[in-house]
Amino acid sequence: MTDLLSLRELEPDDIRLVLTTASNLRDILDRSVKKVPTLRGRTVITLFYEASTRTRTSFELAAKYLSADAVNIAVAQSSVSKGECLKDTLRTLQSVTADCIVIRHSSSGAAHLAAQFADIPVINAGDGRHEHPTQGLLDALTIADAMGRGLRAESGTGAFDLSGLTVTIVGDLAHSRVARSNVWGLTKLGASVRWCGPATLIPSDAEALPVTVTTDLREGLSGADVVMALRLQTERMEKGLLPSMREYSRLWGVTPQTLQWAKPDVLVMHPGPMNRGVEISADVADGRGCGSVAIERQVKNGVAVRMACLYLLMDPLSGNRPETVGALREETT
Amino acid sequence: MTDLLSLRELEPDDIRLVLTTASNLRDILDRSVKKVPTLRGRTVITLFYEASTRTRTSFELAAKYLSADAVNIAVAQSSVSKGECLKDTLRTLQSVTADCIVIRHSSSGAAHLAAQFADIPVINAGDGRHEHPTQGLLDALTIADAMGRGLRAESGTGAFDLSGLTVTIVGDLAHSRVARSNVWGLTKLGASVRWCGPATLIPSDAEALPVTVTTDLREGLSGADVVMALRLQTERMEKGLLPSMREYSRLWGVTPQTLQWAKPDVLVMHPGPMNRGVEISADVADGRGCGSVAIERQVKNGVAVRMACLYLLMDPLSGNRPETVGALREETT
Amino acid sequence: MTDLLSLRELEPDDIRLVLTTASNLRDILDRSVKKVPTLRGRTVITLFYEASTRTRTSFELAAKYLSADAVNIAVAQSSVSKGECLKDTLRTLQSVTADCIVIRHSSSGAAHLAAQFADIPVINAGDGRHEHPTQGLLDALTIADAMGRGLRAESGTGAFDLSGLTVTIVGDLAHSRVARSNVWGLTKLGASVRWCGPATLIPSDAEALPVTVTTDLREGLSGADVVMALRLQTERMEKGLLPSMREYSRLWGVTPQTLQWAKPDVLVMHPGPMNRGVEISADVADGRGCGSVAIERQVKNGVAVRMACLYLLMDPLSGNRPETVGALREETT
Repeated sequence: MTDLLSLRELEPDDIRLVLTTASNLRDILDRSVKKVPTLRGRTVITLFYEASTRTRTSFELAAKYLSADAVNIAVAQSSVSKGECLKDTLRTLQSVTADCIVIRHSSSGAAHLAAQFADIPVINAGDGRHEHPTQGLLDALTIADAMGRGLRAESGTGAFDLSGLTVTIVGDLAHSRVARSNVWGLTKLGASVRWCGPATLIPSDAEALPVTVTTDLREGLSGADVVMALRLQTERMEKGLLPSMREYSRLWGVTPQTLQWAKPDVLVMHPGPMNRGVEISADVADGRGCGSVAIERQVKNGVAVRMACLYLLMDPLSGNRPETVGALREETT
Repeated sequence: MTDLLSLRELEPDDIRLVLTTASNLRDILDRSVKKVPTLRGRTVITLFYEASTRTRTSFELAAKYLSADAVNIAVAQSSVSKGECLKDTLRTLQSVTADCIVIRHSSSGAAHLAAQFADIPVINAGDGRHEHPTQGLLDALTIADAMGRGLRAESGTGAFDLSGLTVTIVGDLAHSRVARSNVWGLTKLGASVRWCGPATLIPSDAEALPVTVTTDLREGLSGADVVMALRLQTERMEKGLLPSMREYSRLWGVTPQTLQWAKPDVLVMHPGPMNRGVEISADVADGRGCGSVAIERQVKNGVAVRMACLYLLMDPLSGNRPETVGALREETT
Repeated sequence: MTDLLSLRELEPDDIRLVLTTASNLRDILDRSVKKVPTLRGRTVITLFYEASTRTRTSFELAAKYLSADAVNIAVAQSSVSKGECLKDTLRTLQSVTADCIVIRHSSSGAAHLAAQFADIPVINAGDGRHEHPTQGLLDALTIADAMGRGLRAESGTGAFDLSGLTVTIVGDLAHSRVARSNVWGLTKLGASVRWCGPATLIPSDAEALPVTVTTDLREGLSGADVVMALRLQTERMEKGLLPSMREYSRLWGVTPQTLQWAKPDVLVMHPGPMNRGVEISADVADGRGCGSVAIERQVKNGVAVRMACLYLLMDPLSGNRPETVGALREETT
C-alpha cells in the first residue's frame, strides 16, 4: 500500500494485514504508557476541509502514540480558504516536510486527487459521499472481535473471516460514506451486507454494489447478526426527502422493538455522533433491550486501526509484510 | 480525589495537598528544560465549549511539561456542535483513550454531569457561573506565597494557613465563577473573604456562602490584605445592570486612590484578561500606586497548579498522599 | 540577536549567520528521524491575529523538530478577542512560561511593540504591510543555493554573497510585507532588487528603499536572474486599484512568454499561496516554459530558516556566534 483511499481498491489480504496490525497495536492502548517510538521524527498532517472531532482526534492520538509529530490544519479557519488549489496545498504540505497527509473533504474523489499530487502517503478520512475507509476497517475489526473471528479466532474460521455473517446498515444511506466503505470492507472478508432505509435515502448506484437493498425494516433486520444505525445527516440532507424526524424515528429507528426482528444476540453499532431518539433509541445506545452494543469499542478500535494505517504506510520497514507483523508484535510486547 | 469539580467539595487537606504539590512542581518551570517524564504516554483532552486562551494554554503546557500528550477540542468549531449529547461526547473521548478530560462549559453543573458519565478523571476548567476551581487554587497559592504562608512558611503559621488574612473581591460577582471558587478555597484555608460590588452584580445566593458582602467600596477595601479585581464580563452581562462603563470605573475601579483604604502593602490580583481603565486602572495593573501586583505570578502559578492537579488525578502512584509529595520532591529535584 | 523583527535592522553578518545555521539544520529534514533534542523542555507560542496555514505550520514543525513544545493561539477564535491589550497578552504568555513568541498581526509595527513588552524573544511572522523577515530569509537561502552561492559556495564568491545578481519582484507590491523584507535581505547580501508592477500597486515610500522601481514589465524582467511573483492580495485590496483579474493577468502575469525577457535560466519563485492564472501561469507554476521553479524549495527552506531562528534566539549557548555554528554542525552530523 502506498495510500489508503478506499476499501473498494483493497485486496482482502490488505484488509487482513491492517486488521492484524491493528490488533497487535491495540495492546499499546491498554498500557499505562501508551507510546512506542516507531514513527519518532516523522510528521503527520491532518488536512480537514470539514469539521470533525472524533476522526481528527483519533488520527492525532494514533500518530502521537507512535511518537510521530502531528499537525492539524482545519481549512475553514486557515489560509487555504484564500483559494489555493488542492494541488498546490498538497505540494506545499509535502514540502513543509510532512511524511503523511490525512485528508477529509466534502467532495467525493478529493482524496484520490490529493494522492496524485503527493509523493507521500495520503489517507482518506472521508471524501464526500464516497468512502471513509478507516471507519470501514474499524467496523470490520469490531465485528470480527465480537464474533470470535478476530486475530485469535475462536470460531473455527481463520482470522478476520466473516463468512456466514449478515450485517444490516440502516438509515441515511444516500449521504453515507461509512455505508459504502463498510460494504466493500465487510464483503471482502466474507460477510453479507444489507442496506435498509427509506427509498429517498438509498443511493442511485446501490445496484452496482455487492449489497442487498430493502426498504422494509423488518426484512432488513430479519436474522441479522449485526445492525449498524447511521447518523441522519440532517445538516447535509436536502429538504423534502423525509416527512419529519418523529416519523423517521418511528419508521426507521433502531429500538428494542425493531431489534426483535434480528438475531437474539444481535450486535448494535453506530459510527457516531448519535442522534439519540432519532436513528437509535436511547435504550439501545446505552445497551438496554438488545444483544450488545459496540459503540465505544468502535471508537477505541478506530485509534488502533489508524495506528496500523500510519505504521504500514509510513514505516520504512513495514513494506515487507509478513515480517512486519512479526516484528511489530515483538516491538510492542 | 478522583475528579476536580469544585473547591466547595474539597477538604482543607485536599487543597493543601494540591498547593504543596504545585509548589514542588513549580521548580520545574524555572529550569532550562521544563520537562519531567511523570505522565509520559498518558493523554489529556481539553474540551472547551467556551473560548479561552489562557486557561486552555495553561492546561496544555502543564500536560506537556509532565510529558503527557495533549489534544484540544474547541467545540464551536467541532462536530460536537452537530448536536451530540454531553454523555456521548464524554464516553467517546474516554473510548478514544483519553486519561483525563478538562472541560469548560457555559452551563453551571456541566462538569459534574461530565464526571458522572466518565470513568476517567474530569477537571472543571469553568462551568457557567458556578466554579473555576484551578483558578481558586492558583489564587490561594499566590496569596500564600506573597504573605509568607507558602510551602516553606516564614510567618510562624503552618504551610498554607491563611488565617488572619482578609481578601476582598471587587466587581462583577454575579457572573464570576472565580469569585465563587475563591470563597471556598480561601475560607477553607482560614482567610476571611469579602465580596464588594454594585447591588445589581451580587448574586442572589451570596447569603448562603461564607462571605461578607458589601456594596460600599470603602468598607470593602478597609484593612484588606489582598484585593482581587474581577473582569467586568460585559459580553455575558444582560443590559441594564450598569449605568455606563465610565460610571462603573469611577465607582468600582481598583485604583491607587481607592487602594488607600486597604492595608499599605496590599497585594493586588486579577484573574485576567483585564479591562484596563474599567475594573482596574492601568497604573495599578502595572504595579504603580499600590503595594504589589501579583497578576503575572498568578499566571505562572496556574501552570504549576494544573500540573499538580493532572499529577494527583492521573498518576497511579499519587493515590497514597503522604508519600506522593515526598516522592514528587525527589523526582523533581 | 534578541528578537527577529525585521531584516532592515539586521547586519549582513546576522543574516549570514541565520542562513549558515539554516543550511546546517536543513540536513535534519532529510533524515528518517527529523528530530534533535536541542530545545527540549522549551516552549514556543505562535500568536496569530491573522489566518495562516503555511507559516504557522512551518514554525510549529520547526519547533517540534528541535524538540520544543509548541502551542498555537489563533486569535480570531480565542479570548484574546475579549479585548485584552497586546501588552497584557504578551505579559501573560511570558508568564505562562513561553520561551519565545511568534507573532503575526494585521498592524504594521505590532511585532516591535510586542518585543518591547516581552522579556523573551519575539519573532515577527508578518506585521501588516511592514515585514515578514523569515520569508525574506528563506528566499535568500533559496536564491543562494540555486545560484551556487550557498554554504558550500561553488561560484567563487563567499557563502551567501549575492553580488551581481538581479532579483525582480513582480506584482502587488503595495500590500506585500514579503517584497519589503526581500529588498532588505537581498540587498544586504549584495543583490540588486527591482520592483515591477502597476503604478496603483507600488507603495508610496518605495523611493526610500534600496530598490529600482518600474511599471514596465519588460524593463523589469530584462536580464533578471530571479523573478518572484507576488500573490495578488485581492482580499486586502481596496476596490478600484485594478481594472480586472483578466486584465491584471494579461499585463502582469509571470508566464513563459514574459519570462523570455529574463535570463534564459531564470529562477522563478512565489511565496504562496498562488493564484494560478493570475499572477503566475499554471505552466510556470509547474515548471514548464521557464528556467527552473523553486516554489517547493522555498517551503522546505522555510522550515530550516525557522529552526535556525528558534535555535539562535532560544538556545542559551548560541549567543557566542562563531562557536554556535560549529557546535551546531557537530550536533547535527
